[in-house]
Amino acid sequence: MDAGQWLVNNRYRMEAVHYKRNHLDVVTNIDQQNEARITERIKAAFPDHQIISEESQFGHTNYSSLDEDYYCWIVDPLDGTVNYVHDFTYYCVSIGVAKKGKLVAGVVYDPNRKELFSAVQGKGAYLNGKRIRVSERSIKQSVGHTGYTAADWSTDSPLRFEFSKCYARLRNIKIAGSAGLDLAYTACGRIDAFWQRSLSPWDIAAGILLVSEAGGRITDFSGQAFDLQQGNIVATNQVIHEKITELLMGGTRDA
Amino acid sequence: MDAGQWLVNNRYRMEAVHYKRNHLDVVTNIDQQNEARITERIKAAFPDHQIISEESQFGHTNYSSLDEDYYCWIVDPLDGTVNYVHDFTYYCVSIGVAKKGKLVAGVVYDPNRKELFSAVQGKGAYLNGKRIRVSERSIKQSVGHTGYTAADWSTDSPLRFEFSKCYARLRNIKIAGSAGLDLAYTACGRIDAFWQRSLSPWDIAAGILLVSEAGGRITDFSGQAFDLQQGNIVATNQVIHEKITELLMGGTRDA
Repeated sequence: MDAGQWLVNNRYRMEAVHYKRNHLDVVTNIDQQNEARITERIKAAFPDHQIISEESQFGHTNYSSLDEDYYCWIVDPLDGTVNYVHDFTYYCVSIGVAKKGKLVAGVVYDPNRKELFSAVQGKGAYLNGKRIRVSERSIKQSVGHTGYTAADWSTDSPLRFEFSKCYARLRNIKIAGSAGLDLAYTACGRIDAFWQRSLSPWDIAAGILLVSEAGGRITDFSGQAFDLQQGNIVATNQVIHEKITELLMGGTRDA
Repeated sequence: MDAGQWLVNNRYRMEAVHYKRNHLDVVTNIDQQNEARITERIKAAFPDHQIISEESQFGHTNYSSLDEDYYCWIVDPLDGTVNYVHDFTYYCVSIGVAKKGKLVAGVVYDPNRKELFSAVQGKGAYLNGKRIRVSERSIKQSVGHTGYTAADWSTDSPLRFEFSKCYARLRNIKIAGSAGLDLAYTACGRIDAFWQRSLSPWDIAAGILLVSEAGGRITDFSGQAFDLQQGNIVATNQVIHEKITELLMGGTRDA
């Protein structure tokens, strides 16, 4: 929570926005400084744990750590950087912990609404200490969130087909810009589904545990077991899961 | 502001969600009750003014009032109803005033962030009393918001082509679900463009005045003069306007 509040307090200190691979992929000094603050604390408290993190200045991105027999922290110091830069208050700090390829703990913190989503494997998911559950909404009552990453932006991207397949069937589809919060919102039943391709472990590790501990379902786009390193995720309230993967796959086939 | 706070305070009183034309188009008892509250106050203060409003229980939807030589209030008691139903805190109260077909005053109020956006024709646009201006961002630095309405959801909708044309060129495109707030955010420079088809006057009347008084530009999709009764709107920071309409029109042509 301290890491989240720090983001809000220091927004005025944001300096030039840097591009990573292209103009869709931005990072700020604030991302980097918050990562340093978080990783320092983890290292001080748990000197023998591994850390994988988005900006990788202080952690590393060697995914093989995820499968090892020690605790591996998966840190996104600021998920939703573009929203942060543009003062659209939908971004979060996302921290997951894995061991032997399994997620064992996760937190997503929204500093603007002061909402802490947390889950421990087998113990349920919570929002500010209160148990949360996914929704029971049907497809017609559902709101889905989605998004796209640099990898999707070729003109023959399946994204546009998926979108047009789904948008007549759900109540609403939004693109909100923070996978971590999208998963947290799915876990607490505000929304009913989230799907996106090519995400990185730090975008979704904590959120995946939130959704599964809240009674939701997570697969890849074809309905098969989700792979954290591939990052094509479909997370739903369980009820609408097959309908959503069917729509998403149908969209790709018709293309 | 009272109307906005009332929305937040009464969310727990929300009852069954009703469908209007189809499952994409919902209305709640809260929309209707807030409209009654707002229109009563307008009628008490200005008994000879006209009122056009979304739910039309207490106002009416005769657009010809917009062009008459008396003041006509254009009221959306809750813009972003789906967000409200799903507790996604991006919705607003939007109230514009027109006379002889011209907008003369407008307010958009975001009760969650306690932000009041206001404009009077020729006097500039304000956020909680402080002057606001559109951004100066280039296309690559820009964030655009868009959306779709029931009218767009045929499978050959131009929306999917527009979307795929634009999304490689801007920093980010989001679908956030409240045209009133999207325009207010364009006016204050948080985002840089907003476009959507088939909107109603109450969705955008106040927002249009905000954007134009903040130095932005508003046209239809082809770059021609915007028509409040047709509702196909492109609103930008001015700098990127031609680029955006070019992308949107190119998308339609290539389809």
